[in-house]
Amino acid sequence: MTTDMNSAEFRRFGHEIVDWIADYLENNRGLPVMPQVSPGVLEDALPAEAPEEGEPMERILEDFRTLVMPAVNHWNHPRFHAYFSVSASAPGILGEMLTAALNTNGMLWLSSPANTELEMVVMRWLRQWLGLPESFFGMIHDTASVSTMHALAAARLAAEPRVREDGAPRDLVVYTSEHAHSSVEKGALALGMGQKQVRKVATDAEFRLRPDLLRAAIAADRAAGLRPCCVVSTVGTTAVTSVDPVAEVQAIAEAEGLWHHIDAAYGGPAALLPEMRWMLDGAERADSLVVNPHKWLFTPIDLSAFYCRRPEVLREAFSLVPSYLRTGQDARAVNLMDYGVPLGRRFRALKLWFVMRWFGRRKVERILRSHIEWARELAGEIQADPRFELCAPTPLSLVCFRLKAGDEENRRLVDRVNESGEAFLAGNVLGGRYMLRLAIGHVRTTREDVWAVWERIRRLAADPL
Amino acid sequence: MTTDMNSAEFRRFGHEIVDWIADYLENNRGLPVMPQVSPGVLEDALPAEAPEEGEPMERILEDFRTLVMPAVNHWNHPRFHAYFSVSASAPGILGEMLTAALNTNGMLWLSSPANTELEMVVMRWLRQWLGLPESFFGMIHDTASVSTMHALAAARLAAEPRVREDGAPRDLVVYTSEHAHSSVEKGALALGMGQKQVRKVATDAEFRLRPDLLRAAIAADRAAGLRPCCVVSTVGTTAVTSVDPVAEVQAIAEAEGLWHHIDAAYGGPAALLPEMRWMLDGAERADSLVVNPHKWLFTPIDLSAFYCRRPEVLREAFSLVPSYLRTGQDARAVNLMDYGVPLGRRFRALKLWFVMRWFGRRKVERILRSHIEWARELAGEIQADPRFELCAPTPLSLVCFRLKAGDEENRRLVDRVNESGEAFLAGNVLGGRYMLRLAIGHVRTTREDVWAVWERIRRLAADPL
Repeated sequence: MTTDMNSAEFRRFGHEIVDWIADYLENNRGLPVMPQVSPGVLEDALPAEAPEEGEPMERILEDFRTLVMPAVNHWNHPRFHAYFSVSASAPGILGEMLTAALNTNGMLWLSSPANTELEMVVMRWLRQWLGLPESFFGMIHDTASVSTMHALAAARLAAEPRVREDGAPRDLVVYTSEHAHSSVEKGALALGMGQKQVRKVATDAEFRLRPDLLRAAIAADRAAGLRPCCVVSTVGTTAVTSVDPVAEVQAIAEAEGLWHHIDAAYGGPAALLPEMRWMLDGAERADSLVVNPHKWLFTPIDLSAFYCRRPEVLREAFSLVPSYLRTGQDARAVNLMDYGVPLGRRFRALKLWFVMRWFGRRKVERILRSHIEWARELAGEIQADPRFELCAPTPLSLVCFRLKAGDEENRRLVDRVNESGEAFLAGNVLGGRYMLRLAIGHVRTTREDVWAVWERIRRLAADPL
Repeated sequence: MTTDMNSAEFRRFGHEIVDWIADYLENNRGLPVMPQVSPGVLEDALPAEAPEEGEPMERILEDFRTLVMPAVNHWNHPRFHAYFSVSASAPGILGEMLTAALNTNGMLWLSSPANTELEMVVMRWLRQWLGLPESFFGMIHDTASVSTMHALAAARLAAEPRVREDGAPRDLVVYTSEHAHSSVEKGALALGMGQKQVRKVATDAEFRLRPDLLRAAIAADRAAGLRPCCVVSTVGTTAVTSVDPVAEVQAIAEAEGLWHHIDAAYGGPAALLPEMRWMLDGAERADSLVVNPHKWLFTPIDLSAFYCRRPEVLREAFSLVPSYLRTGQDARAVNLMDYGVPLGRRFRALKLWFVMRWFGRRKVERILRSHIEWARELAGEIQADPRFELCAPTPLSLVCFRLKAGDEENRRLVDRVNESGEAFLAGNVLGGRYMLRLAIGHVRTTREDVWAVWERIRRLAADPL
């Protein structure tokens, strides 16, 4: 009985797909970044009934090209400037191909030694790039939301060792800034910490967490009989890429006995640059930190790097080893399933290993530095244009700006840019006013791309909105 | 400035990797399934220092072949019979290549319409294959552990709507069988339900949850002033693939007002077979169900299908939409980030779409039916051999057996099989005695593979252990 596709067929379609990807990466500037489609576009075009008989791969690929592709929003496009610009670099894609073929699960060291060991290697390398000490244990999760949820779980256990037996205490409190990512609150909710246990501390004029208000909030909670447990600072907030004062937050965390988790999901990679390393000053004494190579380090989604200086607490929070997974190597080798919720752990380290080796630190630095420079140049241009205004500083590679006009005009401007297909921007409401977000971070974005997009924005803004 | 690898280079290495994968899939029977390596094998072989300068892809691939590969445990090998046998079929690998290249994030419908819509399409198709009603909303998670954690979170909210504000109540109780997967307990721990809130109900002689004991446990908890909240039944337990009486559990859940979650992570796909559909009788009225195409449906890891008949409860548990993610399509389109913890959602649906279309239901049925038949044949052989005994029934494709000898002899037998490189088995302790697990489930496993492994086991058992 034939079962899987035969080798000749796999080769034929594999080569066809490699060529398709090469063309896509080379030429996707010609595609509209955001598709102009309505809900139902793909669901209505595909059969409502599941396939009974197998179909030839030609037909599947034809449907991929003609039905799926027109409904794709091109995150891997050099003019994708919405949310955070991300990229799957060519070396990262090559790594993913091998990960799919090996299909390994690194739940235990024994279940595939290469998975766990390469994960330890790339986490060590990335730690060196970020200038963090060896005391940080690193492991890979899918997303920063999941990394942060694990940090909060460890913080909770550190504050209340009886949580494993008794459940979540309702008197623990988590602090973060009003501009922190929603994953902090979502992680707390998932863990059974109610919204009453989450404090969003106000920020300064540059959208950074205010240490004085953090201190006051902790004092107020203590006075009310609650137990402050964890503070999450952000290096590169999603809304405006503001950088919280990590060292000051760390000092407060130490003085108050709080777990300090740093969400550097987006901003972290910029700490490779000597001139940006200040962002992580103080991080060396923090308890945990997350940085996402799938955001600004050219690695295909998903790969979130989670560091923890107290891995034994993580392990205490999550280890539940059933007997069929006990192995003779347990004393000498790390079994990463013991440090988190997911049991299955695909071989994500491979793509990051490809990316770090192919680029090397020097090239990564050059690319990140250009992104930051272009963002600042663009911010200068915007400031120089009397029709526009900046809405926030530009410490990293996100430019937040708006037309000096009503929210409706600004919304329409975003829509027109996106409908033009030439770029994809996101909007956001900041301090009650709508603004445009233009993030630069794709590995193949050029200065010309940024300038072409800015020209397009200016031209569209010149028409009545 | 050159940034990403150029197109010619990507083509060259992409084609090289496709050929390597084709050779690997065709010839990996020649590789030892489990590597004979010690902890440190790869960490010690790779530079301790992160790369400063980029390296040519030739050298990276050379290290992949000579350093990484010897430390890989070959999950994608037809004689990988440990844990659950899984497989990345060729069509699934082709799908993963495109997912990596597109690098999309389906957090919102708008953030890539194709992601959300194809996810809805494949979840509908799989629901049809499993014979579940349309009322089941389906979405994709990475692993069953994460799917089950989300089910428990929904169950908790259904029992106690104030959990979002107030945090996890300590009086809710979750029930499952003593043979349920550890992910049930781990999910509860993560959610802040203490171990005191988890009951492991004893099973019958065939390792199935006993409804009478479930009823008694619920009554005892109610009498103690606790609130029974959720019951998790299993279709194909990890230890022995026993199938809990889903319909009876469902009847109890309805009578008692409990959320019923079904963990069909491994066993679920077998419900495609008309002769095995009985396993899911009663599931049509359950609240949620998880089945993992990355286990027994030829889909590269990771892809866990999570169904929920009350998606509004999931949404209430997890939705926290920040303003920069609000889109004009919200009323008409599903934003999957609102239904769970992870914000980033890679385009996993694509590989399952490739697999379901290329194989079609008929071919999937033929393959799954052979696996079950071979497992039963093998069980018969084992029973006929006076040196061996079966340790559990063989309802699906896992054979649990042991030498009629001490645990040490059985442990040594597993080690010798694994050291031979010819197959990879796992051991387990069941009822205090060590047994061998031989799972059949790889898309390219043949009857000859199974018989060759059995011959090897018999020969090794003939030598002094």
